[in-house]
Amino acid sequence: MRKERDFLGELNVPDDVYYGVQTLRAKENFHITGQTIDPDFVQSFAKVKKAAALANMSTGRLDKKIGDALIQAADEIIAGKMLDQFPVDPIQGGAGTSVNMNVNEVLVNRALEILGEKKGSYDIISPNNHANMAQSTNDSFPTSVKVCISYKSKKLITALERLASELDKKAEEYKNILKMGRTHLQDAVPIALGQEMGSYASAVRRGIERIKTAVDSIHTVNMGATAVGTGLNAEPAYIKAVAKTLSTVTGETFKTADNLIDATNNTDGFADVSASLKVTALVLIKMANDFRLMASGPRCGINELKLPPRQPGSSIMPGKVNPVIAEVLDQTCYQVIANDLAVSLGVENGQFELNVMEPVISFNIFNSINYLTNAVNTFVEKLLIDLQPNSKQCQKWLDGSVGIVTALLPHIGYENASMLAKEAYATGAPIREIVLKKGLLPKEKLEHILSPAQMTHPGIAE
Amino acid sequence: MRKERDFLGELNVPDDVYYGVQTLRAKENFHITGQTIDPDFVQSFAKVKKAAALANMSTGRLDKKIGDALIQAADEIIAGKMLDQFPVDPIQGGAGTSVNMNVNEVLVNRALEILGEKKGSYDIISPNNHANMAQSTNDSFPTSVKVCISYKSKKLITALERLASELDKKAEEYKNILKMGRTHLQDAVPIALGQEMGSYASAVRRGIERIKTAVDSIHTVNMGATAVGTGLNAEPAYIKAVAKTLSTVTGETFKTADNLIDATNNTDGFADVSASLKVTALVLIKMANDFRLMASGPRCGINELKLPPRQPGSSIMPGKVNPVIAEVLDQTCYQVIANDLAVSLGVENGQFELNVMEPVISFNIFNSINYLTNAVNTFVEKLLIDLQPNSKQCQKWLDGSVGIVTALLPHIGYENASMLAKEAYATGAPIREIVLKKGLLPKEKLEHILSPAQMTHPGIAE
Amino acid sequence: MRKERDFLGELNVPDDVYYGVQTLRAKENFHITGQTIDPDFVQSFAKVKKAAALANMSTGRLDKKIGDALIQAADEIIAGKMLDQFPVDPIQGGAGTSVNMNVNEVLVNRALEILGEKKGSYDIISPNNHANMAQSTNDSFPTSVKVCISYKSKKLITALERLASELDKKAEEYKNILKMGRTHLQDAVPIALGQEMGSYASAVRRGIERIKTAVDSIHTVNMGATAVGTGLNAEPAYIKAVAKTLSTVTGETFKTADNLIDATNNTDGFADVSASLKVTALVLIKMANDFRLMASGPRCGINELKLPPRQPGSSIMPGKVNPVIAEVLDQTCYQVIANDLAVSLGVENGQFELNVMEPVISFNIFNSINYLTNAVNTFVEKLLIDLQPNSKQCQKWLDGSVGIVTALLPHIGYENASMLAKEAYATGAPIREIVLKKGLLPKEKLEHILSPAQMTHPGIAE
Amino acid sequence: MRKERDFLGELNVPDDVYYGVQTLRAKENFHITGQTIDPDFVQSFAKVKKAAALANMSTGRLDKKIGDALIQAADEIIAGKMLDQFPVDPIQGGAGTSVNMNVNEVLVNRALEILGEKKGSYDIISPNNHANMAQSTNDSFPTSVKVCISYKSKKLITALERLASELDKKAEEYKNILKMGRTHLQDAVPIALGQEMGSYASAVRRGIERIKTAVDSIHTVNMGATAVGTGLNAEPAYIKAVAKTLSTVTGETFKTADNLIDATNNTDGFADVSASLKVTALVLIKMANDFRLMASGPRCGINELKLPPRQPGSSIMPGKVNPVIAEVLDQTCYQVIANDLAVSLGVENGQFELNVMEPVISFNIFNSINYLTNAVNTFVEKLLIDLQPNSKQCQKWLDGSVGIVTALLPHIGYENASMLAKEAYATGAPIREIVLKKGLLPKEKLEHILSPAQMTHPGIAE
Repeated sequence: MRKERDFLGELNVPDDVYYGVQTLRAKENFHITGQTIDPDFVQSFAKVKKAAALANMSTGRLDKKIGDALIQAADEIIAGKMLDQFPVDPIQGGAGTSVNMNVNEVLVNRALEILGEKKGSYDIISPNNHANMAQSTNDSFPTSVKVCISYKSKKLITALERLASELDKKAEEYKNILKMGRTHLQDAVPIALGQEMGSYASAVRRGIERIKTAVDSIHTVNMGATAVGTGLNAEPAYIKAVAKTLSTVTGETFKTADNLIDATNNTDGFADVSASLKVTALVLIKMANDFRLMASGPRCGINELKLPPRQPGSSIMPGKVNPVIAEVLDQTCYQVIANDLAVSLGVENGQFELNVMEPVISFNIFNSINYLTNAVNTFVEKLLIDLQPNSKQCQKWLDGSVGIVTALLPHIGYENASMLAKEAYATGAPIREIVLKKGLLPKEKLEHILSPAQMTHPGIAE
Repeated sequence: MRKERDFLGELNVPDDVYYGVQTLRAKENFHITGQTIDPDFVQSFAKVKKAAALANMSTGRLDKKIGDALIQAADEIIAGKMLDQFPVDPIQGGAGTSVNMNVNEVLVNRALEILGEKKGSYDIISPNNHANMAQSTNDSFPTSVKVCISYKSKKLITALERLASELDKKAEEYKNILKMGRTHLQDAVPIALGQEMGSYASAVRRGIERIKTAVDSIHTVNMGATAVGTGLNAEPAYIKAVAKTLSTVTGETFKTADNLIDATNNTDGFADVSASLKVTALVLIKMANDFRLMASGPRCGINELKLPPRQPGSSIMPGKVNPVIAEVLDQTCYQVIANDLAVSLGVENGQFELNVMEPVISFNIFNSINYLTNAVNTFVEKLLIDLQPNSKQCQKWLDGSVGIVTALLPHIGYENASMLAKEAYATGAPIREIVLKKGLLPKEKLEHILSPAQMTHPGIAE
Repeated sequence: MRKERDFLGELNVPDDVYYGVQTLRAKENFHITGQTIDPDFVQSFAKVKKAAALANMSTGRLDKKIGDALIQAADEIIAGKMLDQFPVDPIQGGAGTSVNMNVNEVLVNRALEILGEKKGSYDIISPNNHANMAQSTNDSFPTSVKVCISYKSKKLITALERLASELDKKAEEYKNILKMGRTHLQDAVPIALGQEMGSYASAVRRGIERIKTAVDSIHTVNMGATAVGTGLNAEPAYIKAVAKTLSTVTGETFKTADNLIDATNNTDGFADVSASLKVTALVLIKMANDFRLMASGPRCGINELKLPPRQPGSSIMPGKVNPVIAEVLDQTCYQVIANDLAVSLGVENGQFELNVMEPVISFNIFNSINYLTNAVNTFVEKLLIDLQPNSKQCQKWLDGSVGIVTALLPHIGYENASMLAKEAYATGAPIREIVLKKGLLPKEKLEHILSPAQMTHPGIAE
Repeated sequence: MRKERDFLGELNVPDDVYYGVQTLRAKENFHITGQTIDPDFVQSFAKVKKAAALANMSTGRLDKKIGDALIQAADEIIAGKMLDQFPVDPIQGGAGTSVNMNVNEVLVNRALEILGEKKGSYDIISPNNHANMAQSTNDSFPTSVKVCISYKSKKLITALERLASELDKKAEEYKNILKMGRTHLQDAVPIALGQEMGSYASAVRRGIERIKTAVDSIHTVNMGATAVGTGLNAEPAYIKAVAKTLSTVTGETFKTADNLIDATNNTDGFADVSASLKVTALVLIKMANDFRLMASGPRCGINELKLPPRQPGSSIMPGKVNPVIAEVLDQTCYQVIANDLAVSLGVENGQFELNVMEPVISFNIFNSINYLTNAVNTFVEKLLIDLQPNSKQCQKWLDGSVGIVTALLPHIGYENASMLAKEAYATGAPIREIVLKKGLLPKEKLEHILSPAQMTHPGIAE
């Protein structure tokens, strides 16, 4: 045990841990979720601290020896070390002061160790004066959240791109499988199964663009803003330098906000990112639900798709296979939608120079990205790749349908077509037959109108 | 035009209107929704004002002549008169001060008229000193909201009871229509269509109970609390009297909150009422969606229910009939769920001695009750009463299904039953046939196990 | 009365109305909100119908005489005529078929009148065959929603730009009013009141950009998709022409979606627009709440801002003036957030080739834009323009504060500064005095460090 | 490694684990949150399985030896053993089939071990035939969720009761600390600090009642419903027995639903529980925010409460102490509100005989109860117990205020009182002084009217 003190007093800190007195207080204060800080976030924070140290060294304010040690410590975290040294609960008070101080303390104690000093020798290297130099929680925390979102979103975008591309493959594979299109869950007019797959792909790609746009917009950071955005205690040269060092450390372009006050007290950028995830979730729910409907049956449902079986569906119903992968995507999306509300509530409740709700905001965005990435990858790997169409059933439905009557509209008018439909429903006779029997159209013309190409790609066909 | 003044100055008020200067300011200040106060709410407010006048007369503080005139004016509003005299926007600032003053002004000007005085003679009868005597917006507004919710909820409960009772009729009518039950949208085991209808009825009744419980709980009011709950300017005798006079005026039992401070600054009772509407909406969505699914097709879907056609379904697809009534119920329920969020946000944002967000809270609850009442009545009248089952299709699905294999589980075990299911799916052969062919069970026993009664009411049958 | 029929049968339509049998059915079917279609939406729909007629004339499919009459009828609606002919409830079933047919019927009956024919002579001009030519509700409804959102959003953006520009004026006016910055509602470090105003302006501008981006993205329309996106019954030439005619009619660039299937069955673009409104609402709530806090008091609160009095604040508390305009902005924003949930629920619930929930989706977006525009204009006109700072109070707070100790951090270290703060809180002595007494810094340096310029613009000052 | 098979094929299961092939598949299928099943839920499930085994033994269907072994295994789980044997992700497909089968497998393999048999010998004891006897996931999963909610809610209620009781202590302690009441954040009329504390207590108690009512209502379970509510494969005697055995095992009264179909396919009870948590969260947010406002300053804010310092508030601002405990309560409540939306979305999306979204529903309710319990306990222990009032500041605000003018209303009328207030604001003179100077009221009467007792307890005082 070593003794450490802050201005509330002294505490015993276990000798083997890198964190210090303020982390201990945070552990004591915040037991909410039972979880700890997302490792990606810890590593993103370390990148921000490294960038700050580099910038502080460039202005000459940070002693080189100390700076080098802090950077080495940060690099170790970035490389995946010491990730067990961040025990604070993600839902915490204080705008994330506890996370910031946890990072500061671990960096400092590891730096002290590197320099051959004892942990806790804060007179030599101080969490507040050195690791936090020219910084506040109020700039380093949201900046780290942004670095982390950017990092995580890449995995999500990869997952979504793969989803879109697998859907495109299905679009190509199924392009000649004609089926009954449905609106209002009612038989409408024919469409190709491949067209539906292509539609999902197209919508997913719009989701990707939306997420990218939102994530791009949070590459504007408030490093250098310090406590309230005025940059108090941060030299102009540092403020100028730190976005550049951050870009170097992360390999991405971050830039300093034009208005650092605004960038410190408004968190709408996070609401925007979360909204882009929510809108994407809505697209995915629609797709997953269509899959569930098309796989319904197999005997007493629509049965146009055969999902790969992934587990016995029921503990009591033998032979039952359920669309569990599509269901889990739905549920994940509900969580993402709900998390977006938590983000909104957090963003709503900023006051004056700061939004202290950033911990709950970031916790929910991180979770949403993680969960969505996992669920999309699961959907691709466990469902989409091994998907099988049931072309026979598609054709069977189509053969019995009345909806093709719509194609006759330009030729016989809405009112005549309505009468045809009525007769077909009443007698059960196929539309083709009634048309020919009544001599409404010559056979050849009818066949042309009702050909798959005409029904589904008139723009291309003619 | 007459001149009226308040402490911000003087304004010209049209001679023919009953409202006064403060209502004019409110009209000027608040143009948000373009709507005006819900007439039920105006009438509820008039009841509260009448109750207050009665209580103030009983303590001797309110002059009988003035009191009688105010009561006559209130009675006229309650009878449906002057409802066009309430032009203020329901989303307004000020915790509803504008509505309260609008009511005070109309009452006073009508009372003046009754007494043969000129409108605007507030030295004779004053909106603040007489109509608002011993009251504040902070007690009379929320109390009026409660009176109004209680009034409106009766119509909703009537609608829901009618829905439940019509569903029960269908439950009885369809009790022998056996169909394939579905879980995960996959064929499960048989169930009666009537059992499904009974299930909706049962869930709707739980919704009714929930709404009743929530509405009962807001029969505790804060009349007499005045500005902050301390009852400043309200005599103890008045406080004691006013809940009773309110009960007399409304014909319902209202009682004074034990803790008037709490009852003035906490609005959780409204969140609770709104939540009960939301939960009921969730039940209705599930029911409406089942109807939409069961009515899907008619040729390429489940087609177990025939909904009465209410309008040509499509501007382009002749003969199409859509489940528009179920769809409109769904959409109404989405609105109710959304309104519940507005209520939650309002309730969240009270501060100290008051929640000034009561206008948006009440606006959303009133809308939710109105919309839901209308949609439920529409569902009953335009869909449920003329609903037709498609028994033939129900039987057809059932005949082709494999799900009945579950009933054999206690007799041949899960593993054997799984093999049977597999074979049935592979060969297309009916379960019955395979069982008999393999000699797994004697024919008589098999028939008993697979009889409709056994399949759907085993608890009753044996 | 004239008789009209559709395939459900015959109804009597009043002679003087322009709408027809299907509108009548819709009126009968849908009584949910008691409201009618937003006039902007009716006019947007007329523009879409005009564009379709022009395109259909260009392909030669639509007879010139009929086309010209339909266009004249559309132009009349666009000019504000016949807006009382659209009685259907905005929350309706059928993906908006009722609105579409209402527009079709009014156009046709007016066109018939123009041509000297009797209303209802649908054999001459037909709502389905002519007004709806090459269209479906499923393309013309969402396209009209998009045209309407674009139209409405311009007014909102104007309002927001005015807000931002008025805030900028205040930023300039108040740039030298130094005040205590607050984080966690606790005294932090100094900031200029003007900097806060500039921060709001900056955030509002980000909201504007977000709304513009979202609205831009819905300039991709699915006209020509007809029922399910395959373009059935629409000639390729028409599909090519209609986006151009729509651009001409509206004066804005609309383009045809690359994937018409996707553009017909996915409604994520609406969720995106709504999200952009929600995120803007979050920014506005934060601003409005800061104003409410800064105006709190006047004697027992923060009292840094004097809002213009707009109405007597209370029915019971004389002389009270409340921040009603900021409150109404808050409440409007809660409604916008809630409406966004309704939109999300609608978008979530599309199936297969269509999302039938578009009526509730569009109803909520229209309301959100309307309400937000009104509330922002109200905030500017009734509050912001006449806002007064309370510089004296700002300075008074600052003089008594301890927070300036932070500025000493780079000079004396975190630990020494903490001790200083402790002493100041304990003794009530000013920081300056203690520093000088203890000889921690020379007076001149101290004055420089604590100068307003240093405290609030260090990046610029040095 | 041992081999196990289900109807999808064979898998290798590590020899040392108690779970089996289906759990392995679930682990493989569902990687969403990275979390595992809540231990309370595992134990609740074990109680349900024990109850089912007891009921199956009572009907003679379950062999005593096997039954006893299964019960011993269940008892071990209930005692806290083998909790590491439940690796499945809480967000999963399949209505919870994976959790159910995980429990079945662990019970069976442990039972086999108890009987001296090898793990995986499912021909001797089978997860489906014995552990799941007369059950389906569709009854045992929701029943276990209910048992778990009931168990967890007790801890929450204990926490809330402690909160209410500590608030009551403060109400008593602070009952004579008079302060300025605030409405609209504006000075209103006096109130006692103790009255505010009592108000929070009263609202919290209403939250407790609401949670209790909601949790009581889910003591109605569907055990015996099996797959779709028809009780297929469950003997009537078992159905009768199982609610009783469950009551015995849990020590709480559970009863069988009257309508098992409804109880299986409707999950509104969960939405209701979640709503009760949400409404309680709203109450807690209001309280936490009042504390944050009252603790604001200390020099530049309201400063009526001194919260115990729990950690240095800032990494950059020395001496700053933030209301982190109140902030973390707020954030937790935002999460609870958001989780309620996830629950609503889950409940919305049931279909036909089942709601397959129960995993995400239960995950969110469990989290909400856990988080809220933790946050409330934190608030009590880290903030409330050591709270200090700042009576001096309360009095100081009051002395300078104008709001007491309201108390003069019944004596001098609204208009005179308004003039007084205006003069006081303009001149800065105290109200008392002006009244006396103008001779509006005799001194003695004035002192009586403005005495603390009169101002805050008029109902009691007179």
